[in-house]
Amino acid sequence: MFKHSRELEIEWGDCDAAGIVFYPRYFAMFDASTAYLLEAAMGMKKAEWTKHFDILGIPMVDTGASFKVPSKYGDVIRIESEVSAIGRTSFEIRHKVFKGDVLAIEAHEKRVWVAGNPEDPKSIAAKPLPEDLIARLRAESPTEPS
Amino acid sequence: MFKHSRELEIEWGDCDAAGIVFYPRYFAMFDASTAYLLEAAMGMKKAEWTKHFDILGIPMVDTGASFKVPSKYGDVIRIESEVSAIGRTSFEIRHKVFKGDVLAIEAHEKRVWVAGNPEDPKSIAAKPLPEDLIARLRAESPTEPS
Amino acid sequence: MFKHSRELEIEWGDCDAAGIVFYPRYFAMFDASTAYLLEAAMGMKKAEWTKHFDILGIPMVDTGASFKVPSKYGDVIRIESEVSAIGRTSFEIRHKVFKGDVLAIEAHEKRVWVAGNPEDPKSIAAKPLPEDLIARLRAESPTEPS
Amino acid sequence: MFKHSRELEIEWGDCDAAGIVFYPRYFAMFDASTAYLLEAAMGMKKAEWTKHFDILGIPMVDTGASFKVPSKYGDVIRIESEVSAIGRTSFEIRHKVFKGDVLAIEAHEKRVWVAGNPEDPKSIAAKPLPEDLIARLRAESPTEPS
Repeated sequence: MFKHSRELEIEWGDCDAAGIVFYPRYFAMFDASTAYLLEAAMGMKKAEWTKHFDILGIPMVDTGASFKVPSKYGDVIRIESEVSAIGRTSFEIRHKVFKGDVLAIEAHEKRVWVAGNPEDPKSIAAKPLPEDLIARLRAESPTEPS
Repeated sequence: MFKHSRELEIEWGDCDAAGIVFYPRYFAMFDASTAYLLEAAMGMKKAEWTKHFDILGIPMVDTGASFKVPSKYGDVIRIESEVSAIGRTSFEIRHKVFKGDVLAIEAHEKRVWVAGNPEDPKSIAAKPLPEDLIARLRAESPTEPS
Repeated sequence: MFKHSRELEIEWGDCDAAGIVFYPRYFAMFDASTAYLLEAAMGMKKAEWTKHFDILGIPMVDTGASFKVPSKYGDVIRIESEVSAIGRTSFEIRHKVFKGDVLAIEAHEKRVWVAGNPEDPKSIAAKPLPEDLIARLRAESPTEPS
Repeated sequence: MFKHSRELEIEWGDCDAAGIVFYPRYFAMFDASTAYLLEAAMGMKKAEWTKHFDILGIPMVDTGASFKVPSKYGDVIRIESEVSAIGRTSFEIRHKVFKGDVLAIEAHEKRVWVAGNPEDPKSIAAKPLPEDLIARLRAESPTEPS
């Protein structure tokens, strides 16, 4: 299914007093990676496709990560993200973090497609994924060898 | 096993543009809750017990969370944390977030007891949990009804 | 003028690889301190008074800080915040951070009272501070010796 | 004096419930911009030059920012950073944030060159800036038209 990959450099502010990345920072990186994957899949920025599809966002309902190798300030990591499941109102993404060829982190997440009112988070409701989006998430990425 | 509970108020900076808590912030809250639980169990602040036991820290090896109810700015949540498993060199904690009586988030984490060098995160190594610590983590919390 | 003071403990996630607080974190703490000061002055939570006065928020227009003494994980600091100037559409706050009796940080900030649309940040506009708010910000704090 | 410029995209996690960048996030961006400027000036990553010069880091002693135009999720901003003063044991940087041609933020910072022990932040001490570093910070950037 659709894939996205990006490199990023660990910044000073990402690290804790043990000199390694403070793990909640990885979840912020994964959140951005999912946004970049969807942007690539849809050919629109999130700010545009949330308007285009009239949705509030894609809140996280379940996520987890397994940390195998720590990273420290100045390290360059590669986050490879791929759609792993598509449901009626939700989809799942798997993220793998590599340091060179070494698999450093495996993570997964499930998000829901919701409409709602920014003033009242209680009123949000899951909506079916648009057909066009499903087709795009199922597609192989353009950068991927067939 | 040992439990710890604390209340905290969702701050403006915890929330995202949808008006609800940006989920990586919850992991930072859970990290602090685990630190407060260990502080209560050991009767020492983390800064002290890391020195006392000559360890580098307790890096996360696996964590996950299931988000059921969102929280927004100004909400007061209660994080209930409990030791859920004790291994030779690791332990597990379960966190439950409540909004009033409603269970809003369930999370789990596994941490390793490591010694090492802050200059070189690659050289860290897992160490057996001290007997005294194991006894304390197994104990019921002082605040808990017997 | 109105004052507010609170204590907080430096958490692991507040610190950087040099073992001291990553300074952007202080600005997040000051942001929350200003929110708590206003909550105490108005007798309402920010979520309520933004609705009550029909405003979007109080965006920062100018801030700065002078860092004299670093703090590290586990340190308890006291943030003393005081209204320092009241303009027509803006107000200023001064924050002092103490470690025991030692002045560790001095910071200042100027915020504007704005109404607007969360969907379109460009459309925000400064509004005159309500008279009632001005009176409350000018008052001595209830906890302060007269 | 030495300059560095970079573009970055505002991420979802950078924004607050008003839909604009939570201002403490800008300070984290400026911290990284200063690190990238120094990396370009020295031809070494921070992780290397801190070892090369045997220093602990470059803690902030004074910083401030004036916010003129807000940015929101998906906006691309350009941070132009330039060395603005060089002292015996400290240096100053000015950051300008542009949205297209519009100056959105002006910020300044003063940092000290310190040696010390990550275990004991109290023992840090300012050291004179190395001559070689001063020469590099005074130089025009290679990318700049002479």
